[in-house]
Amino acid sequence: MNFHVMTLFPEMIENAMAVSITGRAIKSGCISVNAVNIRDYAQNKHNRVDDYPYGGGAGMVMQAEPVYRCYEDIIEKHGSARVICLSPQGRVFSQEMAQEYAGEENLIFLCGHYEGIDERVLEEIVTDYVSIGDYVLTGGELPALVMMDTIARLVPGVLNNAVSAQTESFAEGLLEYPQYTRPEEWHGKKVPAVLLSGNHKLLAEWYREQSVLRTVKNRPDLLQKAKLTEKECQLAEEFLQKNGNRGL
Amino acid sequence: MNFHVMTLFPEMIENAMAVSITGRAIKSGCISVNAVNIRDYAQNKHNRVDDYPYGGGAGMVMQAEPVYRCYEDIIEKHGSARVICLSPQGRVFSQEMAQEYAGEENLIFLCGHYEGIDERVLEEIVTDYVSIGDYVLTGGELPALVMMDTIARLVPGVLNNAVSAQTESFAEGLLEYPQYTRPEEWHGKKVPAVLLSGNHKLLAEWYREQSVLRTVKNRPDLLQKAKLTEKECQLAEEFLQKNGNRGL
Repeated sequence: MNFHVMTLFPEMIENAMAVSITGRAIKSGCISVNAVNIRDYAQNKHNRVDDYPYGGGAGMVMQAEPVYRCYEDIIEKHGSARVICLSPQGRVFSQEMAQEYAGEENLIFLCGHYEGIDERVLEEIVTDYVSIGDYVLTGGELPALVMMDTIARLVPGVLNNAVSAQTESFAEGLLEYPQYTRPEEWHGKKVPAVLLSGNHKLLAEWYREQSVLRTVKNRPDLLQKAKLTEKECQLAEEFLQKNGNRGL
Repeated sequence: MNFHVMTLFPEMIENAMAVSITGRAIKSGCISVNAVNIRDYAQNKHNRVDDYPYGGGAGMVMQAEPVYRCYEDIIEKHGSARVICLSPQGRVFSQEMAQEYAGEENLIFLCGHYEGIDERVLEEIVTDYVSIGDYVLTGGELPALVMMDTIARLVPGVLNNAVSAQTESFAEGLLEYPQYTRPEEWHGKKVPAVLLSGNHKLLAEWYREQSVLRTVKNRPDLLQKAKLTEKECQLAEEFLQKNGNRGL
């Protein structure tokens, strides 16, 4: 999986991706990150890539031509690929979308800055508009990093343990159960006894029950997609009745 | 606004916040970022802060004690504050939540890594669980950066122009209109004539109309919260009928 990022802040992309799990994945060759500075494609002596918006208004707009030249350079070297523009206008990013993107060989991210990018170059090169959520950031770099991190985790070989990516949040439409590690007692709080029982059947039931309860409590909206057994539905209903919420 | 971040990767936080608009805001004193390494609070000679999960399973879990000691050190130095744990379990982050957080003087972020953090320390110190979206990341650092960037933009003095934060996406429950800058013609595409007209009334109408159309097209779910005039509702209905979607 090769990530190409069109940005005004290539060091920010490189620094963040060099850390921890994604850093190891780059070193081992599972993924690559190619951060390209749009400013290098400016055609004036001050390397300016922005200008005032037509119609007036606050802020500056990134010009079409340097973005287009940057894009052309990337596809000439690496071939054509989907171009993801990070924008509040986009489809809201989800784990299912990450799964889909993880199947691509190359992905190009376009990070806007200032007030936005000239609409005409977007019409010409962008294939996917994606938003990471309903909030406004100062630029597209953090959203691109969020997407790359989420997608990279799903690339074979990136996580040490294939189990990790599958047993966690959202994998079955449920939130994750609570985690405990040593010591057995901390601040007067003991680890739940079932975790020390060594009984795998009881453990599996407890994990699943905790996941259901947490989802009911924190994100009941997710339950519509989750496949619950009859017993689990009952557990969820009981929780909701006890806590004065409406039924599922 | 002072951001305190409990993390295993303080450089990642510092590097990313030092860039562009947040970097300028740090230099000018509008915001401060205090990234604290949880590993500095380990009490063993290898500075280990994680251990195997009780009950078995893949991955490692961050231990309660170093996290707790790190937290205590921060509040001893800077006073008590809300502690935000970045987690898929949390309430989904939004622009309204950012507005609320922007009113705080200190905020503490707790970034998990590995498979999670011992539940007992979370129960003891965390006040807010926040998720930036329904996808799984390798750690809490990127979500903390996303939240800090979004919140920082709303702190007075951070954006050059107070207008910028108010006229953009979500401010009125609508997506932003398209932006254009020089040249007037690019790849055979001309800037919409109204933007060159200098007629402020026409311009304001066009901006608003474009915002409505883009929201209808890309995020019709947002329209329920937006306040549309009768004429704008009609515009939206027409678009939906033409494109075979169901009515509003």
